[in-house]
Amino acid sequence: MTSTRNPAALPTLADSVRLTARGVEILDRRRFPFEHHWVCCTSVEEVAVAIEEMVTQSSGPHFAALQAMVLATRDLPNEVNAARDRLHAAGERLLATRPTNNGIRTGISAVLTAVDHAAETCAETATLRAEVAAAAEAEDQRYRDRSRLLGEHAAALLPDSGTVLTHCWADLYLIYTVRAALERGKDLRFFCTETRPYLQGARLTAETLAEMGVNTTLITDGMGASVMSQGLVDVLLTAADRVTMDGHVVNKVGTLSLAVSARAFDVAFLALVPAPDPLAPTAEAVPLEQRDGDEVLHTLGRRTASTRVRGRYPAFDVTPPRFVTTVVTDRGPFDPDRLADYGKEKQDS
Amino acid sequence: MTSTRNPAALPTLADSVRLTARGVEILDRRRFPFEHHWVCCTSVEEVAVAIEEMVTQSSGPHFAALQAMVLATRDLPNEVNAARDRLHAAGERLLATRPTNNGIRTGISAVLTAVDHAAETCAETATLRAEVAAAAEAEDQRYRDRSRLLGEHAAALLPDSGTVLTHCWADLYLIYTVRAALERGKDLRFFCTETRPYLQGARLTAETLAEMGVNTTLITDGMGASVMSQGLVDVLLTAADRVTMDGHVVNKVGTLSLAVSARAFDVAFLALVPAPDPLAPTAEAVPLEQRDGDEVLHTLGRRTASTRVRGRYPAFDVTPPRFVTTVVTDRGPFDPDRLADYGKEKQDS
Repeated sequence: MTSTRNPAALPTLADSVRLTARGVEILDRRRFPFEHHWVCCTSVEEVAVAIEEMVTQSSGPHFAALQAMVLATRDLPNEVNAARDRLHAAGERLLATRPTNNGIRTGISAVLTAVDHAAETCAETATLRAEVAAAAEAEDQRYRDRSRLLGEHAAALLPDSGTVLTHCWADLYLIYTVRAALERGKDLRFFCTETRPYLQGARLTAETLAEMGVNTTLITDGMGASVMSQGLVDVLLTAADRVTMDGHVVNKVGTLSLAVSARAFDVAFLALVPAPDPLAPTAEAVPLEQRDGDEVLHTLGRRTASTRVRGRYPAFDVTPPRFVTTVVTDRGPFDPDRLADYGKEKQDS
Repeated sequence: MTSTRNPAALPTLADSVRLTARGVEILDRRRFPFEHHWVCCTSVEEVAVAIEEMVTQSSGPHFAALQAMVLATRDLPNEVNAARDRLHAAGERLLATRPTNNGIRTGISAVLTAVDHAAETCAETATLRAEVAAAAEAEDQRYRDRSRLLGEHAAALLPDSGTVLTHCWADLYLIYTVRAALERGKDLRFFCTETRPYLQGARLTAETLAEMGVNTTLITDGMGASVMSQGLVDVLLTAADRVTMDGHVVNKVGTLSLAVSARAFDVAFLALVPAPDPLAPTAEAVPLEQRDGDEVLHTLGRRTASTRVRGRYPAFDVTPPRFVTTVVTDRGPFDPDRLADYGKEKQDS
């Protein structure tokens, strides 16, 4: 069932976006692990559509959007202000792909800040090109560093021996949490939910945990309360696409159901996010993506529901702070009602 | 999306078992509604295997087991006691198929009581044959009558206009509840969960509600808390495979998760069962069927999970009475802590 790979080695999905001479190549998470198929995007528009169509998700869009900005510099006008405008348009297009997660916004914003600074201080499009590459590289590394820090803080909160329930695919946050736990000698078993309709849990999480040598059992999305009520779970652990300053956790739909059950059966819920969002004081500030309901009627492309019914697919749900035990950030764990302290600790350090 | 059939007409799944010259024919619920394929069972053993392999489920095994007993009378020894032993063995085999639901036990028990009575009072195998046929017919009708009564009591508790969330496939209980509600002029909309791994909700419930002309939206098993937290649901309504005398509701896995969320977001939970089980004082008395975990790794026969993970499939879960609003029986609604009154009302009537 599981491999015996070196826990220090990172699994396949830790590097699933690459910039090549042909364009931005993205490992197709809709087909992984059954196929390792890379989608090649030759323009910013193609990267944007790939993100919208779920070729990649979770941390993936962050890396894909950064590389799309670098790709955009390959074909820029010579005039600096025109080049800057072109890059801003590229950033806008990428930001419009999926509204709920912050990852793209933060990365694009850093790249465009570098672009604006360069455009104001020099007249060379070549300089812009170099600045974009440097900023994208820095943002890529910064995201990995923060995920690693977050993972180390999360691992410290896990039992030395116990069972973790996770939902959907927490990507680098999960990979670094598990790696840190293994490095500390912790003996963890996982339940993961399959996460319909895309089956991120059944495919991405299950495969990656196996790659990392972790004993994993798959359950359906309705079974979380069952295993928690039987005392089989020590910790519920998920990523968060966004955490508001007042402690609401916005994550893949299904998280709320698990969090409510965790509270009912005395299981701690840890939500992983690099930082709470200072632009989101509460949940009303977060746009919740509503995806095409037809996706619920299909499984990996095949119709699996009555042809006479419609579907509904809210991609995310909102877990109120009363169902959240701890928000784990790159600066450590916080109670959901103490997230303002995240900013204070920054000032102190 | 929906038909405009006469609400008084019963949908396809209300009659999905038939005894013919060839044997017991069972509509294959694993393929419905994509195909209307009838599995023909020419022996008790074949009916038992069909039940174990989920050709039919919910109310279906009750009807299939009764007809299997009639089928068994076609090939009986002439000596009455030998014939009786053969019928008892048939009943034992059918009882061993799926342990959690009571439907089979009640029906088989009534048939065997008739067999024993006939064997003690006459010496003709032909008489046994007639008694089995009569008892099976009476049990078939009794089950339908009780479902109809239960449905009328449940319909009375639903709002005149509102939205019901249901899980899995409540079969005749749901059909009669909806029919009674439509006859009362109620304007109901439904959410139904897809109910992995077998997708009973996506296929059986969704198709049947469409046949009955009810506006229905399909969601995944993880979305119940999301729609309830947004105030989109008035009532959570499910069947129960068993209700214990102290108010524990045993039903398809996933029910517990929805019930816990319903309590958290102030949605009433109605559980439908003809009667609480006097042989089950509490949940420990109910054997919970653990099915093959591989079923979670597949969707309608196709592998949909990583090949490196194992699955877990507890077919049922147990909802404690604190998460149950009302148990609706053929004698009306009861608070989960007042189920002993069900027996008292019997004595009074």
